[in-house]
Amino acid sequence: MPTLAENHYGKSRVRLVKVVRHPDRHDLHEWNVNVYLTGDFSACFLEGDNTGLLATDTMKNTVYAVARASTAATMEDFALELAAFLSGRNPQATSVRIAIEEKTWIRIKARNTAGEVEKHPSAFLQRSPEVHTTSITFTPSEPPLVVSGVKGLVILKTSHSAFAGFKRDELTTLPDTNDRLFGTEATITWLYSNLPSDCAATRTRIMDTLLTTFANHDSLSVQQTLYAMAEAALAAEPAMSEITLTMPNRHNIPIDFSKFASPFNHSNDNTIFVPTDEPSGHIHARIVR
Amino acid sequence: MPTLAENHYGKSRVRLVKVVRHPDRHDLHEWNVNVYLTGDFSACFLEGDNTGLLATDTMKNTVYAVARASTAATMEDFALELAAFLSGRNPQATSVRIAIEEKTWIRIKARNTAGEVEKHPSAFLQRSPEVHTTSITFTPSEPPLVVSGVKGLVILKTSHSAFAGFKRDELTTLPDTNDRLFGTEATITWLYSNLPSDCAATRTRIMDTLLTTFANHDSLSVQQTLYAMAEAALAAEPAMSEITLTMPNRHNIPIDFSKFASPFNHSNDNTIFVPTDEPSGHIHARIVR
Amino acid sequence: MPTLAENHYGKSRVRLVKVVRHPDRHDLHEWNVNVYLTGDFSACFLEGDNTGLLATDTMKNTVYAVARASTAATMEDFALELAAFLSGRNPQATSVRIAIEEKTWIRIKARNTAGEVEKHPSAFLQRSPEVHTTSITFTPSEPPLVVSGVKGLVILKTSHSAFAGFKRDELTTLPDTNDRLFGTEATITWLYSNLPSDCAATRTRIMDTLLTTFANHDSLSVQQTLYAMAEAALAAEPAMSEITLTMPNRHNIPIDFSKFASPFNHSNDNTIFVPTDEPSGHIHARIVR
Amino acid sequence: MPTLAENHYGKSRVRLVKVVRHPDRHDLHEWNVNVYLTGDFSACFLEGDNTGLLATDTMKNTVYAVARASTAATMEDFALELAAFLSGRNPQATSVRIAIEEKTWIRIKARNTAGEVEKHPSAFLQRSPEVHTTSITFTPSEPPLVVSGVKGLVILKTSHSAFAGFKRDELTTLPDTNDRLFGTEATITWLYSNLPSDCAATRTRIMDTLLTTFANHDSLSVQQTLYAMAEAALAAEPAMSEITLTMPNRHNIPIDFSKFASPFNHSNDNTIFVPTDEPSGHIHARIVR
Repeated sequence: MPTLAENHYGKSRVRLVKVVRHPDRHDLHEWNVNVYLTGDFSACFLEGDNTGLLATDTMKNTVYAVARASTAATMEDFALELAAFLSGRNPQATSVRIAIEEKTWIRIKARNTAGEVEKHPSAFLQRSPEVHTTSITFTPSEPPLVVSGVKGLVILKTSHSAFAGFKRDELTTLPDTNDRLFGTEATITWLYSNLPSDCAATRTRIMDTLLTTFANHDSLSVQQTLYAMAEAALAAEPAMSEITLTMPNRHNIPIDFSKFASPFNHSNDNTIFVPTDEPSGHIHARIVR
Repeated sequence: MPTLAENHYGKSRVRLVKVVRHPDRHDLHEWNVNVYLTGDFSACFLEGDNTGLLATDTMKNTVYAVARASTAATMEDFALELAAFLSGRNPQATSVRIAIEEKTWIRIKARNTAGEVEKHPSAFLQRSPEVHTTSITFTPSEPPLVVSGVKGLVILKTSHSAFAGFKRDELTTLPDTNDRLFGTEATITWLYSNLPSDCAATRTRIMDTLLTTFANHDSLSVQQTLYAMAEAALAAEPAMSEITLTMPNRHNIPIDFSKFASPFNHSNDNTIFVPTDEPSGHIHARIVR
Repeated sequence: MPTLAENHYGKSRVRLVKVVRHPDRHDLHEWNVNVYLTGDFSACFLEGDNTGLLATDTMKNTVYAVARASTAATMEDFALELAAFLSGRNPQATSVRIAIEEKTWIRIKARNTAGEVEKHPSAFLQRSPEVHTTSITFTPSEPPLVVSGVKGLVILKTSHSAFAGFKRDELTTLPDTNDRLFGTEATITWLYSNLPSDCAATRTRIMDTLLTTFANHDSLSVQQTLYAMAEAALAAEPAMSEITLTMPNRHNIPIDFSKFASPFNHSNDNTIFVPTDEPSGHIHARIVR
Repeated sequence: MPTLAENHYGKSRVRLVKVVRHPDRHDLHEWNVNVYLTGDFSACFLEGDNTGLLATDTMKNTVYAVARASTAATMEDFALELAAFLSGRNPQATSVRIAIEEKTWIRIKARNTAGEVEKHPSAFLQRSPEVHTTSITFTPSEPPLVVSGVKGLVILKTSHSAFAGFKRDELTTLPDTNDRLFGTEATITWLYSNLPSDCAATRTRIMDTLLTTFANHDSLSVQQTLYAMAEAALAAEPAMSEITLTMPNRHNIPIDFSKFASPFNHSNDNTIFVPTDEPSGHIHARIVR
């Protein structure tokens, strides 16, 4: 008889907007919550016995109920609270994992009645393509595993990027270059050895460090810049024990104007590029302290 | 024999990154260009005679060649230049339409060697989900038709939004409300009666007006706010002769906590909502001066 | 004061699965319904007076209620029934438009207890990327305007496709070819002069004609094949008064093996291609009887 | 100094169409190829030394070159050939992984000149939303690891599906049901203990078994059906050593007609449902022999 080697189940894409109504302003959070339970659910798989199974619909309701009562200031704190709540009520689960993606909303800058531009207390604009992420794995009587990060961070540098001296064979057509565009849509996660008291401030500091390093680095390859970003982030945040970066190389290919006829033929002067989504380079590494 | 009642053809999704290399900084533009020609191409359709047909591959090349030589400061200026170029070289086309979408890149704020945060001269971050749009229709010996706008503008207000007193029938279950979330992913276009000298500054002024009105308006319906936004934009920009807004109502549905058992049952206090992409209300209007 | 030049509103993306339970089998329909009302709603836009406004939430409920009672065999019949229902109850609307997209589900071929493969009576597989479409515009005391079609029809022919003899200029780099791949993701709609008694059978006959013509045509250009498809469809279906085809040319670019070093350098033998989504040619025409 | 704990790099989304030109017909394959190399590339990451680095652009070229020469009948065979080729030429890589997704094209059924419907020898229609997948991990002097599967398989059964007797708490609102719709967009992979001589025929047999089991199973839960599918597949194919299924529960929610006023109020008769993409149940398991 086949064996259930591993299993988990849960509810994905539980979307949630939370409005915190202060006297002078509203705060707005938009979270996409995923709940996963791991445990011995073999009676359900093998015999159709649902006795110990918390319905995924109930998980969805639980997300809303916990969110309503929660005073968590960050999604890391909320994820931890939600995981502990579910774990406490469901001893049949050996571990609970909560993964959240957060969309960034900023306040609309609007003119007030005096004609001055100010951040509006209750009107918002969705800002960026990237989302913030966190994943909490909660196992009773163990410290929680907290991995935070960012997804869909689209960045591009137009100088200080070279790629030369790589291995060449009969199928190599890419020329060496000392001046190329370097663009990526990065996915980055880091593991906390202990949860910072203010995860939002920590996140901001980490992101600033990553972006500063990306911007300033004299890049000899995506790999080298990736490692430099990791090194800087680990130096900036003692609570980070490891960091994983996936930085696909979203190529911007210089137009070859030499193939046009006069007067449109030119040598490459690195001004006009075709941005391409595919194929893309794929560079991935995990760097530990 | 069937008649060719209307036709146009061209090249879609010609993507383009332009880097302008100043001594102290780089400027970066990312455009998605679409080129359409209209004319009497019936010999091609009916007989397979391609004599007068400019290949869409050539249109693509033309976009790059014109972009390289261009000094246009805005995508409106570039679109006009490209349309005139193609029209002048292709008298078989009665009109040329150029439509461009622009992604917004902002400079990364990075620490310099002195540790100060400043906007980096050559490293960029893709900012917002929305794209700027323009469409130029160029017909020889006529003024060009210029329609600019924005697409994918995701905005949300958490106060000053009601919806009540609407028509009720046997299938109406929505209660009146004086306090709801009002979210939309707006598509907005405006027609210029004459092209402003600085389309970028004009666009900024129009967007500020639209967002200020959205934020401040005491909304009785999406329709009323849409009209107020249109009215304010027309007042703010004399060169705008009409404005078209499509504002799907992206609903945020309050969770009904009363269906849970004690201690999780509550009356609605307008704090936790489910954001939904579908179904969505669809409100569309064109407002003219 | 600005004028409301045009407006409509409604509910988009009302998704619906209908299961018809016969004694020996179930039938399954999946529709994505869009409801739009046009009329004089200026009191709502200008004054926030919602008195005559049917809430879009009510439209959604109406879709479900009418779907439950309906015995319509095709989505065209259902759209017409829904439009008439809404129009009859909402005289403030001068016209009602219903647009539906239908996903295709086919029966799973499963082995029965005797080990024979047969179409399962109640288990389904989503078949194709394309969706069937219809749009009904209903104005009281006028015949309804019925436009049906298909969207996302991805087709490709590997022979009988040439493109040569087109206009050449200094920016033309595309060589003439007598053997190219011709791929497209077609969007096709046709207007019925009168509604067929069996819209599903008519649709099948039209699609067969379109696909047969695409497959068999000796193509000198996308334009010529598009026209041939239109001509054949108009000949096959007398109830069709016009047909509109948008056939973006999804290019498959032959690999240039000559740029590789020996032993991998070869002249083009038309075997390996890169399929590309962008840029794409864009060919559009409306052909009338 | 931080340590490079793991890394791999490569080229993603190398798209490829291969046309095999037989005298009487063409065969068509569309593959999306991903190439990943693992090895000691720390000189590149830490020092920017690219000496041993095969450029991802060269990997792309290699895909095309190997595809041109290949006579592989299935994507599994091609992936293996490509992995061995790259591994042989790049001893700096300890392992090479090739992952391929295949889109399904079927022949268009067209009328020939005699008016008979037949499968066209060189015109194709993209068939299904699902893609076939394979992943080969090649390590010199070890047997290759071959994992094949399917992604985006959208299936739905309208009978023989119950969900009852699950754990209830204060946040449980889902009623027990003995008749619900059961829909999923399945991702399934299986590990071969040894590579079958005809991977395409083996795939067909596995898929038939999975679909037959899904269709016929008297389901007490997604979990139970998932396990039954796994068990049947393992029984059907001796070369399969394990199978992993992720079957998100794409819910179809019955409309509650009781909330409408007469004459539209009804009790639920399981005919009209709202299909929803989110939130979705998430059921995942790996079953081993």
